[in-house]
This record gives sequence, C-alpha cells and structure tokens, in this order.
Amino acid sequence: MTTSTPAIDTSRATDRASLLAALAGEDTPTAPVWLMRQAGRYLPEYRAIKDRYGFWTMISTPEIAAEVTLQPLKRFALDAAILFSDIMTPLCAAGVAIEFSPGPIIAEPIRTAADVAALRLPSVDEIAPFVAETIAAVRSSTSTPLIGFAGAPLTLATYLVEGGASGDFARFRAWLPSERETATQLLELLTDLTIRYLLMQIGAGVQVVQLFDSWAGLLDRASFARHGLPHLHRILEAIAPTGVPCIYLAVGASHLLTSMRDLPVQALSVDWRTDLRTVRRAVPGPTLQGNLDPAILLAPASVVAEATERVLDDGRGGAHVFNLGHGLRPETPPDNVAALIDTVHNFDRHQEAGRSA
Amino acid sequence: MTTSTPAIDTSRATDRASLLAALAGEDTPTAPVWLMRQAGRYLPEYRAIKDRYGFWTMISTPEIAAEVTLQPLKRFALDAAILFSDIMTPLCAAGVAIEFSPGPIIAEPIRTAADVAALRLPSVDEIAPFVAETIAAVRSSTSTPLIGFAGAPLTLATYLVEGGASGDFARFRAWLPSERETATQLLELLTDLTIRYLLMQIGAGVQVVQLFDSWAGLLDRASFARHGLPHLHRILEAIAPTGVPCIYLAVGASHLLTSMRDLPVQALSVDWRTDLRTVRRAVPGPTLQGNLDPAILLAPASVVAEATERVLDDGRGGAHVFNLGHGLRPETPPDNVAALIDTVHNFDRHQEAGRSA
Repeated sequence: MTTSTPAIDTSRATDRASLLAALAGEDTPTAPVWLMRQAGRYLPEYRAIKDRYGFWTMISTPEIAAEVTLQPLKRFALDAAILFSDIMTPLCAAGVAIEFSPGPIIAEPIRTAADVAALRLPSVDEIAPFVAETIAAVRSSTSTPLIGFAGAPLTLATYLVEGGASGDFARFRAWLPSERETATQLLELLTDLTIRYLLMQIGAGVQVVQLFDSWAGLLDRASFARHGLPHLHRILEAIAPTGVPCIYLAVGASHLLTSMRDLPVQALSVDWRTDLRTVRRAVPGPTLQGNLDPAILLAPASVVAEATERVLDDGRGGAHVFNLGHGLRPETPPDNVAALIDTVHNFDRHQEAGRSA
Repeated sequence: MTTSTPAIDTSRATDRASLLAALAGEDTPTAPVWLMRQAGRYLPEYRAIKDRYGFWTMISTPEIAAEVTLQPLKRFALDAAILFSDIMTPLCAAGVAIEFSPGPIIAEPIRTAADVAALRLPSVDEIAPFVAETIAAVRSSTSTPLIGFAGAPLTLATYLVEGGASGDFARFRAWLPSERETATQLLELLTDLTIRYLLMQIGAGVQVVQLFDSWAGLLDRASFARHGLPHLHRILEAIAPTGVPCIYLAVGASHLLTSMRDLPVQALSVDWRTDLRTVRRAVPGPTLQGNLDPAILLAPASVVAEATERVLDDGRGGAHVFNLGHGLRPETPPDNVAALIDTVHNFDRHQEAGRSA
C-alpha cells in the first residue's frame, strides 16, 4: 500500500468495483470499504490545506475540493471516494447566510412562517455550481466510485431552527410540535432543495448518494413518522429514476429502525450502537453499511483488528459495505486506518472461518 | 397549588402514596410524578443558593442539601423528593479528587492497573456521611417519599477514565476493549462502592433508589453485556434484601432494551426517544418511568399538555411513574412544570377517554 506517493493505489481495482455490487444487494466475497470523514483532519495533508485556505474556500473551490476528496485514496486502498463538502452547502443558494467555525452558525435562524417564506427555492443550476465542477474533476482523476451526499431535510432544519449545532437541539425539539405548519413548510422546501441538489450531483457524475440524517435520532417515532419519513420518501422517489443507489444514515436511531422498514433505499448506514445482525433482522431488505465504533481506531492495532472482524462477521448473511458507525475522529492515527482497510479486504465473507488464508 | 409560600403542598397526600404503589407494580388510577433535576437551576430559589455557596458546598452541607431537596416540593404537588447530590459524590471517599465546574473534572484520570490499585474501598460509614445527615433532615421534614440514588459503575467509570464529561467519551470507548482486565477491576471496585453507598442511603431512610446509567447507551450490546450487566446484577442482588425498590435509568439505550429484560429492577426509567408502549412490549416486567422530552417544557402550555397526555396514554396497561425522559433544563419556565403536574394528576389512567371529568 502506498502511504506517501501521490499516485492512487489501483492494486485493488477489482475489489473497488464491489461497492456498486454491494449496493445492488450482492453478497460480495469481500466487503467494500470507505470511511465517513475519510477526507479530514486526521490526515496531515488535509490539515496543511485547511490551515492555508479555511473550510469554505476548500469546499467552494473545485480544484481544492477535488484534491481533498482524492487525498485518502492516495494513501489507502479505499473502495469509494466521497465528495468533500458539507450538508449545509446547498442552503446558501436558498438565501441562508451560514458561517463555519467549524460547525455551521446561522446568525438569523429560521423559525417563523415569515422566515420560511423569505427562503427561495433555487434552480438546479443555481445550487452550489462549484460542487458540479468538483465532481467532474474527481471523476476525471479516478475510476473509484464517487459518492455524493446531502443532508436529510429534518437534519438541515435542526441547524436552521436552532441557529447552529447545539449538542441536543432542545429549541428545535420544542419548536417542532409548537409550529407544525411552519415546520412542514420548511421541510417541504428543504425537500425540494435536496431533490434538486442530488439530481445536480447525479447529473455531474456521482455514482452513489448518501443522505445524512445526523439528528433524526433525537426524535421519537411519532415525530419521525410525521416530520421525517414523508420527506425522505419524496426524495427517494424523485431520484429513483436515475438508478443511482442511495444510502440513508440516521445516527443514534435504533428506536426508529422499524420505521425505516419501508424506506426505498438501497442501503442503511448504521451507527456503532446496534449490531448489524440485529439491524438485518429488523430491516431485512437493504444493504447494510457500517458500523465500527470510530473511537476504536484510537486503540492498539490488535483491538482494531478484533473489533473490525466482529463487525465483518456481523455483516454476513447479506450485502455489506464496511464503514464506521460515525465519522473518523481527528486524532485517529492514519496507520490504524491502513490496517483497518487491510483487515476488511482480507476477510472472506463467504468462508466460515472468517479470515482468508 | 402554592407557588411562593414556604409551606409544603399537602393537598395531594393520597396521590403521593402512589409512588410506592406504582413501584410495587400497581396499575394506579393516576400516575405518580416526579421530575429528574426537579431541584435545579430552573428555580430562582435554587439559583440564589447556588450563587451563594457553590455546588460542592450545597451537596456536602446537610442543611443546604436538604433545603434544596425540599424546594420543588414547596412549589409543586410532586409525589417524590429526590436527594440533592451528584453521582460522583461517593468517589471522594475512594481517593479520587474531583472538581465540579459544573460537570465533574478528574485531574488525574484512572486508566492503568496502578491507578485502580491506588483506589481504596471505603467503609459504609466513610462514604459521604453528610448524605446520611441530609437524608435524615429531609425525612424529618416531609412525608413525601424520598428517592436516593447512585451512578451505575459503568457511568462512573466513563468519567474516571475520560477525566470528566466529554460529550462522547471516545477515550473511554477505546480504553474499554483495550484494557479489559483493568476495566473489570475498576468496575468491580465501583460496584462494591455503589453497594455500600446505596445501603448507607437506605439505612439513613431513603424509600426508593435510582441507578443512573447516563452513558450506558454509548456501548453496543456486547460491551454492555460484558461491562454493564454483571455489575448491575450484583448491585441489585445486594440491595434486594432491604426491600427498597430500585429504578434503573439508561439514556439513549433503546438498543439495549432486550438486554435489560432479566434485570431484577422494580422500574425502568425511559428516555424520550422510545415510546412507553414499545418498551412495555420489549420488557414486560417492571414499572415504567418516564418519558416526556424535557425540551417540550420550553414550548407553549397547550403543546406541553398534549405531549404529556400522549405519554400518559402510552403508559397505560401497567404501572407507570410519570417523569421526564431526561433532566429538567435550566431554562424551563416553572409555570410549565406546575401545569405539567396538574395534567398528570388530572389524567385518569383507567378511563378510556383519558382525562377525568
């Protein structure tokens, strides 16, 4: 494996193709692997660019965003690239002023019917055109599948209403049942925006999309059924004709698992709290993605290997894309990431003993 | 209802007795109600004392701790008092230096076998004797049942290993599978300490105890089975002969529900994410406590009433102690708390229509 040369490791081109196979429901002999936040602060080459340009310039400058997207592929035998961007990116075109420091800060939160009415639904071409350029640049640089993404409407709304990240979004949780009509109007608009943004990314060349619903788990099942599911259904129906597979991630949402049963997604991304066997029983249809605890990557190599193999073992019995249960942590040693990927690629999912000879 | 006089409201003395009935498994006609952090910063009379004395002086001075414990009972028709203290209190006697600012800070975290060996198991009389005095003072001032509490060993360990509250305790999550023997030694010692601390509280007069496992939900089921459950069982067996009922609270732990099926507790306290009907199906034995989202108390009164009645409705079909799904927030309007308690007491759990005439 290369660790410092700029050339992309192509030694596992065959394995790499398996991401799309696994997302098509194929029980592949090895699990394809990518890692949430694989382009991020744990890489010194990322930090060098971040220190120089700052987050928004990195996202909005296609050459930089493409370079950062490709950085982890130069080090590791990853089976997918994921667009370097932020779930809040498309909101700028809707008229929301957002600052990143590093989490999003919305100085003028959206809380009233008038706030929602003041938002505009941009055309496909108006939404973050730099993202389309980034996607084209990445696609022309690698044959590794590229994953695009968007925030789910509910999660976008948590930030817009709260005014930024707050840990537990108590204001949003009080607002949602207090302002149901306004909430529905906001969520409808965010749904339309998300559909256009994803169609733009798909048109520009992403081969997979992931919907990040980072805060869905804050809601109980009734609230999720009312304010989450209908919008997710509309998004999934709108992008279905493109044939591009969609991965849905909700964090801390094991209480919502049965609500996800009828969601027409190709894959569910699972956080580390719920083991994949349990999820597969509760939601038998989709490919499962996940779910090593990212904190484990701070442990010694033997602990990482053991925990990784347990996840791989739990992932048997259906299609599995290996990933973390949450984003890579900035303090992760890159060597542990390399070892993790080797462990995944050396694990034979069809052999009872687990590890291949 | 009194809102400013110092006299304790005794108008609902009959209802109050129902806490012990509900914890004994009785499907009471109204739900008894108390609220986690009912003695806390949302009360101006609490803030006045806090500003004057600071957190540790409040906890460690029996007259002050008793006064603060009783404060919410003077305002509201609550069916229980809960000892004003902190889950970290008993650790001081074990040789851990803890600062509160306001969360616990452990300047010298416990991570190695030597760190654990340096801890000592204090005798019952050595553990926070001021707590016994506080309990006696509260018992002599009110006939309302008094709840004592302790942190579950796993949750105490998260703070000791991490060095304080960190939001996601990543270091602890990496440490646990890396240092299994040391972890077991630490957890065994914390279990012994917790048993002694709870027996001390019971001896001093608390009529109920609650075990706070605030961070159990960070673990997956296998880790909880290894590092959580055995210690909980030992604690519950040790206090069982006293006949004092125990409530177990794990937050964000719906993925661990089935693991709790065999836990010999009298009540499970449920956070707001999982509705009580689902919990009752998954764990049919114990009384359920919970589980209004505390953020709802920041909403208008009509929203509070509607959400409260939904929880009460979900709580039917077995014994139910009304509570929040997490602690009261400092920004909660006291008037909403008063209205909440009225709603609970006016709800007839045995009548199909819900609200009594």
